[in-house]
Amino acid sequence: MKDVYQIAVVHGDGIGPEVCAAAVEVVKAALGPDCPLRFTEYPAGAEHFLKTGQSFPEPTFEACRAADAILHGAGGLPGVVYPDGTEAGLDFTLKLRFELDLYANIRPIRLFEGVTSPLSGVKAGDIDYVILRENSEGLYAARGAGALLRGEVAVDTLVQTRAGIERIVRKAFELARQSNGAPRDGVRRVTCCDKANVLRSYAFFRSVFDEVAKDYPDIATEHALVDAMAMHLVLKPGHFNIIVSENMFGDILSDLAAATVGGMGMAPSAEVGDTKGFFQAAHGSAPDIAGKGIANPYGTILSAAAMLDWLGRGHGDERLLRAADQIRRVTEACLAGGLLSADLKGRSSTAEITGNVCDRLAA
Amino acid sequence: MKDVYQIAVVHGDGIGPEVCAAAVEVVKAALGPDCPLRFTEYPAGAEHFLKTGQSFPEPTFEACRAADAILHGAGGLPGVVYPDGTEAGLDFTLKLRFELDLYANIRPIRLFEGVTSPLSGVKAGDIDYVILRENSEGLYAARGAGALLRGEVAVDTLVQTRAGIERIVRKAFELARQSNGAPRDGVRRVTCCDKANVLRSYAFFRSVFDEVAKDYPDIATEHALVDAMAMHLVLKPGHFNIIVSENMFGDILSDLAAATVGGMGMAPSAEVGDTKGFFQAAHGSAPDIAGKGIANPYGTILSAAAMLDWLGRGHGDERLLRAADQIRRVTEACLAGGLLSADLKGRSSTAEITGNVCDRLAA
Ligand SMILES: CC(C)[C@H](C(=O)O)[C@@H](O)C(=O)O
Ligand SMILES: CC(C)[C@H](C(=O)O)[C@@H](O)C(=O)O
Repeated sequence: MKDVYQIAVVHGDGIGPEVCAAAVEVVKAALGPDCPLRFTEYPAGAEHFLKTGQSFPEPTFEACRAADAILHGAGGLPGVVYPDGTEAGLDFTLKLRFELDLYANIRPIRLFEGVTSPLSGVKAGDIDYVILRENSEGLYAARGAGALLRGEVAVDTLVQTRAGIERIVRKAFELARQSNGAPRDGVRRVTCCDKANVLRSYAFFRSVFDEVAKDYPDIATEHALVDAMAMHLVLKPGHFNIIVSENMFGDILSDLAAATVGGMGMAPSAEVGDTKGFFQAAHGSAPDIAGKGIANPYGTILSAAAMLDWLGRGHGDERLLRAADQIRRVTEACLAGGLLSADLKGRSSTAEITGNVCDRLAA
Repeated sequence: MKDVYQIAVVHGDGIGPEVCAAAVEVVKAALGPDCPLRFTEYPAGAEHFLKTGQSFPEPTFEACRAADAILHGAGGLPGVVYPDGTEAGLDFTLKLRFELDLYANIRPIRLFEGVTSPLSGVKAGDIDYVILRENSEGLYAARGAGALLRGEVAVDTLVQTRAGIERIVRKAFELARQSNGAPRDGVRRVTCCDKANVLRSYAFFRSVFDEVAKDYPDIATEHALVDAMAMHLVLKPGHFNIIVSENMFGDILSDLAAATVGGMGMAPSAEVGDTKGFFQAAHGSAPDIAGKGIANPYGTILSAAAMLDWLGRGHGDERLLRAADQIRRVTEACLAGGLLSADLKGRSSTAEITGNVCDRLAA
C-alpha cells in the first residue's frame, strides 16, 4: 500500500480526451477527497505528431515508465501516417506494449443488463468471457520492421517464442481459476485459439499450450482454429470462459466479441506485464464523433476500474479494490437503468453518464 | 464450348464424400442425360495419408491440372499432422491454390429465405455480399516455409506482392461491376480490408488498392481495418457489396460471415485463377458428424453451381449457365420450403435434400 499512486494520463486523439476525462472524474468520485491517485497528463498521439513531428515524446515515455499505472483515452487519426503508410498516432499504444513488455492484454467481454446484443435470443449474463490477447509478439512484432522491396514485395514476419507463449498461457489458466467459468455450463475452461492446421508458428503456440495445460488439471481445455472461433463467438458465445490467442488474432476477435455485447464502447481492456499496467478502452479515437460530447465513456470507465483492481491487488490496497468494485456496480446499475449513449441507441451524453455515475458513487 | 468437360473429383475426408456425391448428383440432374461433364474421382486427404503416407499423390495433382475443373468435398482430420504440427490432410486444398495459382477465392455470403440468421432483425435479402479472399500469397505463403529455432522461436512470414494485390483488387472491382450493389443502399462498392495502420505489408495492400481503384471511378470504395470489419459484419452486414482482403484475414472473415447466414453449411466458394478453377464449400470435414447422413450439402451444391457458371462463361456454353441458374433457383426454393438439415435446425437428411433438389431439377 502506497500513500500516493502516480498515474500517467494520456488523452490522445479524437474522443480520447472526452472518455479519459470521464474516467478520471469517476475514479476521483469513487475514492473521495482522500484519493491516493495523482493524475498527471502527458502528450502523445496523432495530433501531437502533427504539431511537433513526434507522436510519443521521450518525456512521456519516461513518465509512463516511472508511473504506477498508465491511463489512456484513445490514439491515432486516419491519414496521419508515416512514409511506410502505418499510423503515426499509434506509437503510444504500440511502443508502450513492447517497451514495457505488457504481454497480457485482458479483454473482458460481457453483456450487461440494459444493453441489447445484436445476437438474437441472447440476454444479459449469457455472454461473459475474457479474450486474453498476447500483446508483445506475434504478427505485431513486425510493426516498424517489415520490408518493402522495390515497391514490389512487402513482408512482415510473425514471431512467436516459447517464453512468450508460455507466460500468456499461464496467465490464461490463472484467469480461469479466478473466474466463475463459462456462463452456459459453469465450466472453467481455456480455449486455445490458433491456426495450427496451416502454420508452423501457430502449431508451436498450440504445442506450448498443451504442455502448460498439464500444470492445470483442474481447468478444462480445448483448441479452436481462428476461423471457427470467429464463427463460435457469434453462434455459441455462452460456451467460452477464457480464450487465449496470438496478438493479431486477439485484435480481430476482441472487436468481433465487442460487437456482440454492444460495440466498441463497451470494451474495456487491461494491458499488463509483470510489473507495469496500461489501461484504455479497446476502441479507437472515433474522430467522426469527437468533440460532440456523445462518446460512450463506459469502456474507459471500466478500464479505469480494472486499473484500480490491478493497483489494489499489486499493492494490497483495499481502498482501491473497493473503489473498483463500486465503479463496476454503479456502472452496471446505470446501464440497467437505461443511461445509454448514442452508440447503445440511447440519448445520454458523455457528461450525463459521467455525472450520473459520479453522483451514485458519492451517494 | 466443349463436347466433354473433364471434372476431377476429390471426395476427401469426414463429410467430404457425402456432400461431394450430393453435388455431383445434382449437377447430373440439372444437365440431364446429355450431361457433358465427366466426373472422375481421385484420392487425396488425411485418410489417404494415413493409408499411404501421401496426402496429395502426384497422379491426383496431374489429373487436377489437366481437368477442366476440380470439385472437392472437404479435407483434413484433426490429429493427422506433419512433424511440424500442421495438418497433412490440407495439402490438397493448399497446394492446389499455390501450384495452380488460384489467386481469387470468391465467397458469396447470402442469407436465403428459410434460413434464420443469428443476428436479430435480419431477414433474407438483407445480407448479400462477397468476400474476395486473396488465395495465393499473404500469411499462407508461409505454409511449409516457417522456421522453428531450437524449439524456442517460431517464425512465419507474410508476403504480399504488387502483382498479387493488383490482380485480386481488379477482380474485386470486376465483381462489383457485375453485382447489384449492397443490399441496403444498392451502391456498387468495394471495401478494402487490411491492417494498414499497424503493418507495412497491409499498408502496401491498401496503397495498391487505392491505385487500382482509380481505374474504376464508377465503383464506390472504402477502407476498413480488419478488427473493425469483424465488428461491421455483425453490426451492419447490409452495407457491404464486395470485400477484398489478404488471405489470412479472408479466412477468418469468411467463417464469421458464414455464421451470420446459417453457418458453414451455407458457405460455397470458388477458387479461380486465370485459367483454372477449384470448387468446394468453405467448411471443413466435420468428422464428428461424418457417415451419419446428416451433413448439409447446400454449400457444396452451390459451389458446384459456381463451377458450372465458371465453365459456362469460360467456354461460352449456355447449357452450363442455364444449369447453374436452375440449381440456384431450385436450391433457393428448397430452402424457402423448409428443406433444412440439422445444422439449420431442420430434420432433413443429406439424401432427402439431395433427392428433393434433383427431383425438382428433373421436373
Ligand atoms: C489502435 C490499434 C493499434 C490497436 C491494435 O491494433 O492493437 C487497437 O485496435 C486495439 O485493439 O488495441
Ligand atoms: C481447410 C483450410 C486449409 C482452409 C483455409 O485455412 O484456408 C479453410 O479454412 C478455408 O477457409 O478454405
